[in-house]
Amino acid sequence: MKRTSIGQVECPVARALDKIGDWWSLLIIRDAFDGMRRFGEFQRSLGISKGILTARLKHLVAIGVLEMTPISDEDGYQEYLLTDKGRDLFLVTVSLRQWGEDHCFGKSEHHSVLVEKANGQRVQRLALRGRDGKEISESATFVRKVADTPRRPHNPKRRRAARR
Amino acid sequence: MKRTSIGQVECPVARALDKIGDWWSLLIIRDAFDGMRRFGEFQRSLGISKGILTARLKHLVAIGVLEMTPISDEDGYQEYLLTDKGRDLFLVTVSLRQWGEDHCFGKSEHHSVLVEKANGQRVQRLALRGRDGKEISESATFVRKVADTPRRPHNPKRRRAARR
Repeated sequence: MKRTSIGQVECPVARALDKIGDWWSLLIIRDAFDGMRRFGEFQRSLGISKGILTARLKHLVAIGVLEMTPISDEDGYQEYLLTDKGRDLFLVTVSLRQWGEDHCFGKSEHHSVLVEKANGQRVQRLALRGRDGKEISESATFVRKVADTPRRPHNPKRRRAARR
Repeated sequence: MKRTSIGQVECPVARALDKIGDWWSLLIIRDAFDGMRRFGEFQRSLGISKGILTARLKHLVAIGVLEMTPISDEDGYQEYLLTDKGRDLFLVTVSLRQWGEDHCFGKSEHHSVLVEKANGQRVQRLALRGRDGKEISESATFVRKVADTPRRPHNPKRRRAARR
């Protein structure tokens, strides 16, 4: 895949996909949300080879989504923890979950659900809202490209001030 | 990648990722949301080979995310349109966009934005809400596995009724 071709574009969707890398990365992040921290835990959950998992974890640490804890206990286990940047991927997993729940299970099949700790109830469906707070659908939106975005007039004074 | 190993699990995130297939598929869907319909449009946007694009489009039609229109005009062009199932992937692209906007652009870099047609303003940030409508963070949630989900008592009468 020509990843370099989509990593520098103006589209945040493409940059996000380019940075995250591949599907396995999102499943590792899902497992981290689920409380997993150790290499062996991720490996048992995903059933992938040590080599692939090592590479994916290294990548996720490199892009700042996971961080490694210093080894402090007697076991000598290294742990992988989500950073704030990693936790910000939560809604990506929630949106995938919602689509999966809606479209990837037969009527007789059961699936896990996302619930609130406070009351044990399922969370509300994820929805996009307009400025007035009302839910809006895809057809009520469009993507404004950089070329079509009005710019502030050039102001060298402000630019100099911002550099300080 | 051992895709078959994650396609039948109880986790909707894993099933969704397994079904969608790969990153390119989501970029094709992004372009379809942007109004693209023809092979040549997708190819120019993504800069990928005809062979890869053909395979991806075929996959997206096979899983019911895109549908091909019957060729009716004189040009003889085939068009690819999002189905309802495909449009339901909107929030996946929005959540990736949000993370990309937050974490993949330098301060001096510009990116496209998602706006409301009605007023030209940017949409609200995507957020997860609890039952009471208030925004909740990842740490206020957990995933309830199928094994931990209380089941309704067995009721053969209802099951027979449901089959009709």
